[in-house]
Amino acid sequence: MQNRVKNADFAAKIMDADAAAALVPNGALVGFSGFVGAGAPIHLPLAIAKRAEALHAQGKEYKIGALTGASTDPHLDGDLAKANAVSFRSPFMTDRDMRGAINTNETEYMDVHLSSLAQQVEAGFFGEMDFAIIEILGIKEDGSLIPSTSIGNNQNWLNYAKKVILEVNCAQPESLEGIHDVACLPKVPFREPINIKRPSDRIGTPYMKVDPSKVVAVVVGESKDRVNSFTPLDEVSIAIGDNVVKFLQKEEAEGRLPKGKLLPLQSGIGNVANAVLAGLERAGYKGLSCYTEVIQDGLLALIKAGVVTEVSSASLSLSPEAIEDFRENIEFYKKHIVLRPQEFSNHPEVIRRLGIIGMNGMLEADIYGNVNSTNTMGTQMMNGIGGSGDFARNGYISIFVTPSTAKGGDISAIVPFVAHVNHTEHDTMVIATEYGYADLRGKSPRQRAAEMIKIAHPDYRPMLQAYFDEACKGENGKPAGHTPHILSKALSWHDKYNKTGSMK
Amino acid sequence: MQNRVKNADFAAKIMDADAAAALVPNGALVGFSGFVGAGAPIHLPLAIAKRAEALHAQGKEYKIGALTGASTDPHLDGDLAKANAVSFRSPFMTDRDMRGAINTNETEYMDVHLSSLAQQVEAGFFGEMDFAIIEILGIKEDGSLIPSTSIGNNQNWLNYAKKVILEVNCAQPESLEGIHDVACLPKVPFREPINIKRPSDRIGTPYMKVDPSKVVAVVVGESKDRVNSFTPLDEVSIAIGDNVVKFLQKEEAEGRLPKGKLLPLQSGIGNVANAVLAGLERAGYKGLSCYTEVIQDGLLALIKAGVVTEVSSASLSLSPEAIEDFRENIEFYKKHIVLRPQEFSNHPEVIRRLGIIGMNGMLEADIYGNVNSTNTMGTQMMNGIGGSGDFARNGYISIFVTPSTAKGGDISAIVPFVAHVNHTEHDTMVIATEYGYADLRGKSPRQRAAEMIKIAHPDYRPMLQAYFDEACKGENGKPAGHTPHILSKALSWHDKYNKTGSMK
Repeated sequence: MQNRVKNADFAAKIMDADAAAALVPNGALVGFSGFVGAGAPIHLPLAIAKRAEALHAQGKEYKIGALTGASTDPHLDGDLAKANAVSFRSPFMTDRDMRGAINTNETEYMDVHLSSLAQQVEAGFFGEMDFAIIEILGIKEDGSLIPSTSIGNNQNWLNYAKKVILEVNCAQPESLEGIHDVACLPKVPFREPINIKRPSDRIGTPYMKVDPSKVVAVVVGESKDRVNSFTPLDEVSIAIGDNVVKFLQKEEAEGRLPKGKLLPLQSGIGNVANAVLAGLERAGYKGLSCYTEVIQDGLLALIKAGVVTEVSSASLSLSPEAIEDFRENIEFYKKHIVLRPQEFSNHPEVIRRLGIIGMNGMLEADIYGNVNSTNTMGTQMMNGIGGSGDFARNGYISIFVTPSTAKGGDISAIVPFVAHVNHTEHDTMVIATEYGYADLRGKSPRQRAAEMIKIAHPDYRPMLQAYFDEACKGENGKPAGHTPHILSKALSWHDKYNKTGSMK
Repeated sequence: MQNRVKNADFAAKIMDADAAAALVPNGALVGFSGFVGAGAPIHLPLAIAKRAEALHAQGKEYKIGALTGASTDPHLDGDLAKANAVSFRSPFMTDRDMRGAINTNETEYMDVHLSSLAQQVEAGFFGEMDFAIIEILGIKEDGSLIPSTSIGNNQNWLNYAKKVILEVNCAQPESLEGIHDVACLPKVPFREPINIKRPSDRIGTPYMKVDPSKVVAVVVGESKDRVNSFTPLDEVSIAIGDNVVKFLQKEEAEGRLPKGKLLPLQSGIGNVANAVLAGLERAGYKGLSCYTEVIQDGLLALIKAGVVTEVSSASLSLSPEAIEDFRENIEFYKKHIVLRPQEFSNHPEVIRRLGIIGMNGMLEADIYGNVNSTNTMGTQMMNGIGGSGDFARNGYISIFVTPSTAKGGDISAIVPFVAHVNHTEHDTMVIATEYGYADLRGKSPRQRAAEMIKIAHPDYRPMLQAYFDEACKGENGKPAGHTPHILSKALSWHDKYNKTGSMK
């Protein structure tokens, strides 16, 4: 094992994960590192899960509250959920077992904008934070901490927590040192502006700091981020990506976006986001910039190809293959990438100032452009809102993307009335499926409905049109109003799916 | 009539309102001044309405698009709506006739955050702006324009419009000169931070500017803002105000708000907002600050009493009595008040930085804390979202207030599922009725439901509890999920009201 703990005070606190986990009592509120699968501790959560299982076997209570940056490694959310060891969880998560615990109410879950959680914790809205458990890449002679593949809320948790456990991960390259820009928002009132005027601007230092007297344990180990390998793009994703690119090119041609450079891009996670990026490359763009939350394999390839040359991100969520490429070309990538805390990567102030083109996935939208990003059939939590609200509300242009159907066609992504709202009509500008894009800008609800029905799957278009036409007649002799609906049928598509397995 | 047009070039363009209105063609997109009843032109819209009626009588088409700051004088929205002269309207409005035109779809209406409209117009999302029709208090020798009782989007419209008509209002005191802080956000990309760090900070100049070659007419007249007189507070409003103050005092006592000073306050319009302010006065606060959209009579009284000493606002919406007091003590008030464009009064950057306590009215909330501010029974537009989204999303604490019932008890303000969503669960922290406050911070949906049911009217609490209990059992053998609902019953309260006239 390499020596990554170069400060003697910290080295004196090295212990194994089980001993460190024993320090975390039942009922503790813990702030973990981790953002979109990157930079989450692994050994500590695993040891806590084992401890919880042992205590539960003895009939004893043991559950902790778990706050993170965003989604974590399966060993964090997954192992803790399987051990039924989490009483409360916030914000974003993508793990199957954690999702199950939330939907069966074994774990209380609160879905918070990624930009907002740290301030709300500092304000005391979640009670006192007992522990911070933070993955780092190393500790320098002077006690500075080298952040891992994400910063998330780490500096905040290090500041707020009463006790700190550091997990030093020797499997990630120490040469990441210098890529990070660590800062922390001051408390209200009388704060200064955030001096980020373009994605590459730096306002902090490459290191995190912690009061050494709070550090109760340092655990040294090796763990790779568990990010899935890049899967080849399917036809539907490619078509959606092409529709987004078509829209952006039209905006450019008509003078509403700067020629050849667009504006800084934010793109969410997953295949459709990758397809949009690939579409931009095919369209011949060079020298674009990103102010985004996550660098996945697709974006890394675009940096290499010179399509994107300036990237601010909250995390490096790379597959094992991509991380090898990153390691080999690290000095090249460090010239183009800044990794930031999520308070800054997602801050409304910076997003609004820069004029971001925000692109995010969704579950469903209704005919008036309200978007559900989180709750299937209105009740079952999928992953959480993540940073989509930060970007959709504050972006210069906010785009949502989705395949027009799910479950082999039994679910339409365009419905009369969404069963849950995360993004309102006020915050959605363009919605794209494989059938085209709906341009909702400058349009009233009725004008929006025409756009939305157009991009639905052909099987569902007549049903949507029939609902809209009936709604426009009004009910009970009253005018249909500004946003026509038939309340007794508004949620009937979802109800039918629950009862029959299909919206058809 | 006083001589308020001191520049010869502008004086040469003086004409009567009918002649000026004749310059505005059918189909024009017009940017008007006006924000919460303050500073809207009156003579021009009236003349345009007369012209529309005359043309309609001849079987000719005549409609314009109307963008404003926020709500206007009844002579603007009201007369234009009565003449069926508006094809498209955005953003906030409160006039009965305009509301009628929107709900019968004679006028297409788009509901936009007050902070966002100007940028979206500049970006070209609404097409080209043909005319700006802006009320001012006077024109100085050098051609500078003295703004009226609101700035709204005026400087933006003056910049964007191809032609400009100025309406000089001699009925408002010219001594307002100097109270305004006029600025305009630059275009993307590479914008600078907004240098407002406390409510009284100034970043612009007291005057608006316009390219004189674009000015096609100057109309001089007199018109008072038509703001209703202050009505005495009713018992329910007082009780709601007291509950909000109780909450704020608890936050202070427990160290989550600065002692004695709170944080800068934003309070929406109407009786409940006034009741909260009155409650703060009764509680003995002194030297508070406001970063808000509107100064109504209640706030003016608090400035006089020293309860509030530093106010940033987008408008002065005062009743005839209050405007007399303002006129008599204008030098005093000018020391305490800055009037800003709505791009700045409502900017997410500034709101988030300052750490605002946002307080806004609403129509209904559901048991999970989603809020409907705009559409009664989901379909009928009331007034629009206004600035409530800007403040609720970005505030340090966001509070919504409402009486627990409407229509003599037949409508519950707390429902199983809101029929329209303007503010999601992610953006609502505290909801107050006359029965108490629901503290939703740091809570999961199920934990929120317990809080929300508590503040409903006692008549509706058992019905809400029964819905929630049934929903928690799950449907069709599936777990109830993160946000329990019975989809077939979720909107049944609204449907019942539509059919029977009562939710009971």
